[in-house]
Amino acid sequence: MLGIGDDAAAWKPSGSHLSVITSDALVDGVHFRSGRMSALQIGHRAMAANLSDVAAMGARPVLATVALGVPPEAHEEQLLDLYRGMQALASGHGVRIVGGDIVRAPALTLALTLVGEVRRSHLRRRDGACPGDVVAVTGPLGASHAGLLLLDRDLPVAPELARRARDAFATPQPRVREGRWLAASVHLHAMMDCSDGLATDLGRLARASGCGATVEAVPVDPAACAVAQALHEEAAAYALDGGEDFELIVAIAPRAFAHLSARFEQHFGRPLLRIGRMEKREGLRLLEASEERELASSGWDHLRP
Amino acid sequence: MLGIGDDAAAWKPSGSHLSVITSDALVDGVHFRSGRMSALQIGHRAMAANLSDVAAMGARPVLATVALGVPPEAHEEQLLDLYRGMQALASGHGVRIVGGDIVRAPALTLALTLVGEVRRSHLRRRDGACPGDVVAVTGPLGASHAGLLLLDRDLPVAPELARRARDAFATPQPRVREGRWLAASVHLHAMMDCSDGLATDLGRLARASGCGATVEAVPVDPAACAVAQALHEEAAAYALDGGEDFELIVAIAPRAFAHLSARFEQHFGRPLLRIGRMEKREGLRLLEASEERELASSGWDHLRP
Repeated sequence: MLGIGDDAAAWKPSGSHLSVITSDALVDGVHFRSGRMSALQIGHRAMAANLSDVAAMGARPVLATVALGVPPEAHEEQLLDLYRGMQALASGHGVRIVGGDIVRAPALTLALTLVGEVRRSHLRRRDGACPGDVVAVTGPLGASHAGLLLLDRDLPVAPELARRARDAFATPQPRVREGRWLAASVHLHAMMDCSDGLATDLGRLARASGCGATVEAVPVDPAACAVAQALHEEAAAYALDGGEDFELIVAIAPRAFAHLSARFEQHFGRPLLRIGRMEKREGLRLLEASEERELASSGWDHLRP
Repeated sequence: MLGIGDDAAAWKPSGSHLSVITSDALVDGVHFRSGRMSALQIGHRAMAANLSDVAAMGARPVLATVALGVPPEAHEEQLLDLYRGMQALASGHGVRIVGGDIVRAPALTLALTLVGEVRRSHLRRRDGACPGDVVAVTGPLGASHAGLLLLDRDLPVAPELARRARDAFATPQPRVREGRWLAASVHLHAMMDCSDGLATDLGRLARASGCGATVEAVPVDPAACAVAQALHEEAAAYALDGGEDFELIVAIAPRAFAHLSARFEQHFGRPLLRIGRMEKREGLRLLEASEERELASSGWDHLRP
């Protein structure tokens, strides 16, 4: 109803829905490096991180505000590209940027806030998982971390996989449509986005739900496999601890999983990947060659024997 | 319905109201100096700036998110005090802090977003003023700038006025109740908050409304008068160009002003101060000793003859 230019923006929220709100900040040198990414990509990533949080609630994103901290060395075209990057992804999901703030700052800083709407019955939290639930993710993991590693060096990786990794890092696609679709099922007990790596985020979901989980299969993206192979590293680590993949982690009633995942694949043209199960026993475990290993949510590598 | 700890917070918006949203960011070294203000005061000021924007729409503030950028040298007690400062002012206005983000940053940064609610008929914009409207403010101006000047030096100012100036700077009171009360009148045509000085902000209101304004009387706070006198400066400049006073500027139908201001004084125990009138003629003018002088919204002093 009222956008940029007044003391605040105004809109008419749906009378039958709940509203959701999330804020995420990204700082140059901490969350991205402006020298190594284009402003378009930085804007895209900032918007993707916030859209992903709204998606994880099962909500439809509606509007965004942007507080931009601008360092002395920034130039106009760079700032316009930041907005273009945010705008392109936002409008692709029907989101309007309705206001914000521009301030001087020692480093480029993007603090975004997103508001969404969701039917009360479709709101999905991270604390609703039950022991026995199937754990699944909306896509393979680790490609974003592989793309980050490719920023640093040239590696003997097939060009199409290198591009896939770089795209996953620079222009990640938040699973907004997938989140809304999944949230419409009463059998979906819990959902959150995978922004800090599977080990950390599944650990959080399990703790919030008062149970534990065992990961039976780590779905590693082929681009992550290729980069890991070139570096003689373990690709599973990229998925478990890499972060920034922005896939959704879900806990689904076991008897409903087969049907739901078949319909998911029909609808989106790619599978809902089963990765394990929720359990009464607290903690996070990884099943490797029929042996269980404890996973630390603080970082997979740290507990490597 | 759902606060801190999930991917997003959720609430039930009023079905009969509009929602409003505003984001303001404050950066150490730009908007405040952490060495010269307590963390409690910094938190208070950040929340006050956002509450003031919601007040200026005639809305009731409901909830806030906080994205906090934390530099390496920050310590825990300082961050807790920041939140305490925000929390104390927020809860005094019925606002809940429902989420946000904490990130590393080169300088202490507070990016706040506030959501409020307002009846559609009570929403007040800055572009509704008409030629002939009385311009008024909810309180005298300039004390915040006087308080800023007192941070730098000791001046021969009466202790109670010095304290008043310091309080105006460090813990400004957003006019949330006043904004909602005023917005209930159909005779209130436009409203905005005075955060950048009267000359700048009244200039914006006039431009947005497609008209001009003449300031007939500048309401200078006694604390601003005392500090200006001690420094041999003009107190009116503090009000016109100082900023950060967070009073509300309103444009009111002329036939309604007397009655509305009398009721305002009855209700709040202090007057609604008439400062001038809106005019068809564009631009901003100051009436001094029956002579008009153009006011530049970029800064009062710059055009001083």
